[in-house]
Amino acid sequence: MDMPAPDPAILGRKAELVARLAEFLPERAVIHDPAETRAYECDALTAYSCPPLAVVLPGSTEEVSRVLALCHAMGVPVVPRGAGTSLAGGALPTADSVILGVARMTEVLETSLEDRMIRVQTGRTNLSVTGAVEEEGFFYAPDPSSQLACAIAGNIAMNSGGAHCLKYGVTTNNLLGATVVLMDGTVVELGGAHMDAGGLDLLGLVCGSEGQLGVVTEATLRILPKPEGARPVLMGFSSSEVAGACVADIIRAGVLPVAIEFMDRPCIEATEAFAQAGYPDCEALLIVEVEGVEAEIDHQLGLITQIARRHDPVEVREAADEDEAARIWKGRKSAFGAMGQMGDYICLDGTIPVSELPGVLGRIGDLSAEFGLRVANVFHAGDGNMHPLILFDANAPGQLETAEALGAEILKACVAAGGCLTGEHGVGVEKRDLMDHQFAPADLAAQMEVKDVFDPAWLLNPAKVFPLAASEARRGARLAAE
Amino acid sequence: MDMPAPDPAILGRKAELVARLAEFLPERAVIHDPAETRAYECDALTAYSCPPLAVVLPGSTEEVSRVLALCHAMGVPVVPRGAGTSLAGGALPTADSVILGVARMTEVLETSLEDRMIRVQTGRTNLSVTGAVEEEGFFYAPDPSSQLACAIAGNIAMNSGGAHCLKYGVTTNNLLGATVVLMDGTVVELGGAHMDAGGLDLLGLVCGSEGQLGVVTEATLRILPKPEGARPVLMGFSSSEVAGACVADIIRAGVLPVAIEFMDRPCIEATEAFAQAGYPDCEALLIVEVEGVEAEIDHQLGLITQIARRHDPVEVREAADEDEAARIWKGRKSAFGAMGQMGDYICLDGTIPVSELPGVLGRIGDLSAEFGLRVANVFHAGDGNMHPLILFDANAPGQLETAEALGAEILKACVAAGGCLTGEHGVGVEKRDLMDHQFAPADLAAQMEVKDVFDPAWLLNPAKVFPLAASEARRGARLAAE
Repeated sequence: MDMPAPDPAILGRKAELVARLAEFLPERAVIHDPAETRAYECDALTAYSCPPLAVVLPGSTEEVSRVLALCHAMGVPVVPRGAGTSLAGGALPTADSVILGVARMTEVLETSLEDRMIRVQTGRTNLSVTGAVEEEGFFYAPDPSSQLACAIAGNIAMNSGGAHCLKYGVTTNNLLGATVVLMDGTVVELGGAHMDAGGLDLLGLVCGSEGQLGVVTEATLRILPKPEGARPVLMGFSSSEVAGACVADIIRAGVLPVAIEFMDRPCIEATEAFAQAGYPDCEALLIVEVEGVEAEIDHQLGLITQIARRHDPVEVREAADEDEAARIWKGRKSAFGAMGQMGDYICLDGTIPVSELPGVLGRIGDLSAEFGLRVANVFHAGDGNMHPLILFDANAPGQLETAEALGAEILKACVAAGGCLTGEHGVGVEKRDLMDHQFAPADLAAQMEVKDVFDPAWLLNPAKVFPLAASEARRGARLAAE
Repeated sequence: MDMPAPDPAILGRKAELVARLAEFLPERAVIHDPAETRAYECDALTAYSCPPLAVVLPGSTEEVSRVLALCHAMGVPVVPRGAGTSLAGGALPTADSVILGVARMTEVLETSLEDRMIRVQTGRTNLSVTGAVEEEGFFYAPDPSSQLACAIAGNIAMNSGGAHCLKYGVTTNNLLGATVVLMDGTVVELGGAHMDAGGLDLLGLVCGSEGQLGVVTEATLRILPKPEGARPVLMGFSSSEVAGACVADIIRAGVLPVAIEFMDRPCIEATEAFAQAGYPDCEALLIVEVEGVEAEIDHQLGLITQIARRHDPVEVREAADEDEAARIWKGRKSAFGAMGQMGDYICLDGTIPVSELPGVLGRIGDLSAEFGLRVANVFHAGDGNMHPLILFDANAPGQLETAEALGAEILKACVAAGGCLTGEHGVGVEKRDLMDHQFAPADLAAQMEVKDVFDPAWLLNPAKVFPLAASEARRGARLAAE
């Protein structure tokens, strides 16, 4: 992965930078010893790493503002970091950048059940947001697989989804307001505990902007009442294409489950070996979950299994009790861990119209054979959010490059099918040079001009999201104009 | 309402403009005779009107592109118009502007039930989008009161809501993609029948931008399966404050109805005189609707009426059958018509956190007494989207101005309570000079710089959304720089 050469002038001012940061941050909040910054060299896209210049862990919006104002004044790039769980290299440092981590900012600032909202510092983990309101019968809906670890800051940066987003929408549908610190230290309040305000929707723009526009330090989130009950059904099929067709039929019939999860044979086998969930021996399976009161659950599962039976299922297993429900979900929830046990992998998240599932699954199979690398599929099928996992051996020379080339072809196939490069992981460094396949030059130019408005010097999260050559050219042009 | 003075140079080129438009538009699509342009002098904010230079009604994205490119080349401002139902003057012309109406663009372009989407030309009315898919059991969720007449173009421009948005979200939550024509004629595709794409969320930015960034000609909309059934309950209370407290209790208890509608005594009386819905004699009433299968409906209504009984209701009337359900909704749906029979009114849409309802309702009562004008309240209480109707006599000298001054104070009270100026009607001309109360100077500056990116010459929908002095200064500065 190409990264821009570090600016030697900035490297030479490290001591000055650290001294000035220490003027207003507590000692433990400024990390600059190379042995200690190692933990921040990469995120969950571990194939790439780079030691940062320094790491700061501020404790408040005001401290974040002072850090950004100082870096802005000194011309030092800043890489914002949530919990470091990005699968797209969204928090990968450059050698001349400061990592600004929000890990110490985990407070619940306000909860109002009647306003269906909670306001938190964005270092708080996704699951602990639900943890703060579940005793009162509420929950926070977006549920990325990494929800135990990932921070709300990263969820907002990447507009994260999850298994239950089929019904509840992704982060942007559950974000009411944000405190955003711009690169020059200005603190801006967007939205609030009310509906969409007038004027341009800058909150919607900031959500999913991958740390390109500002650092979100506090967030007002929509919380929802927990449903009375929920029940999954597990269904096995004779091929991925048949399972894909069953998904399309369920949606077309007007049933809206909370989740439709898909796993193919390579993924089922890996998961069984790892978690012994008792999954059937089949080419592909679906886990479909519905929720509501008992009668509603019975009604919906009746419709779903009736549709499934038209596709000659290998097995249909409705959860009889909570134990069985937990076992059905256990396999799916440990799928990523199971694949990790099998070796190295790249996890993509190309997203397509649901009607294209059978065709794109077939195309992925063809590409896998062509490139000679196994691909396992485990994904949120109900909203077409695929997660092809490309398995490779990082120690075998050239395999990473082959895996990346295969990944690029799969993502191009998603775009060609009317989909997009990323449903929830973001572009990061991983997909920046594929953006030309998704967006026309005028689209990318408009996006970069919007970035200019918020971060004229292009100091925030450098070398990400936009094609590297384009963003470096833009940054150079802005620097020259100053 | 101040509007900028028309540019005499543009007025002098009307004949040339009309001739050049006629080169590529059919005869009936170019309206320039002052007798015929009269219908376009105002929208549903009828207190203000102005004859436009000309009106064009293109039939395709390509024609829209050619109109905008021509106006751009000639420096002629353009006011986009959906169905003209804006309550905020969003489609009010200036004397030197061309009205670009999408009323002839009403086609359904594509429907895919398995992708839960429909793609339409944006002149299509809101209700006829549902009409195109209801036989298959689907519907389009946002339901503004004007849904019989209002166009999807205007819904997108204003990010419209409606009674059922408590459960289903507003337009931005149901918009998947858009074809947008920029002021220079460039056609841009944003989003599509897939989840959120990578890069900056320009689709979210365009939704709610009130025609400031481009003209949306085609839209890909989320359609949803119709619920099995729905049932309303009508509950009368001894004061507005008590009804407001009941709403907060329902939400706090973790029940999420599809709609919670509120009407106070002035509105109930007007509605009864007009529609004879049989509403109880009380200070305030709530209509709460839940949906699902029968058992789910029974369960939720049981919880809701139990909560209501703690507030000593004057009456609790659960709909026993479809006729009674229709009667309960009949009054609410004819409320605006009923108020119109009583005289002139301004309808605001300040929106607040639900927990602030009792306090803000009290404040509105105080302000009404202070200004000596009656205010009726009818609104979507579940999401705090208020609709105070200020009643006045347009023929009495000074009453319009008094009504506007009262409206401004009510909206400031909403902002002071942690809310915003507009939940769904938009800023338009009506609230532009109150934007300073909602946004800090840096916020407004950022919004205007984003506008610069899309419409550098500030030709699109002039003199709206931003404070008049600020937008005129901006426009002048951009013109001088050219």
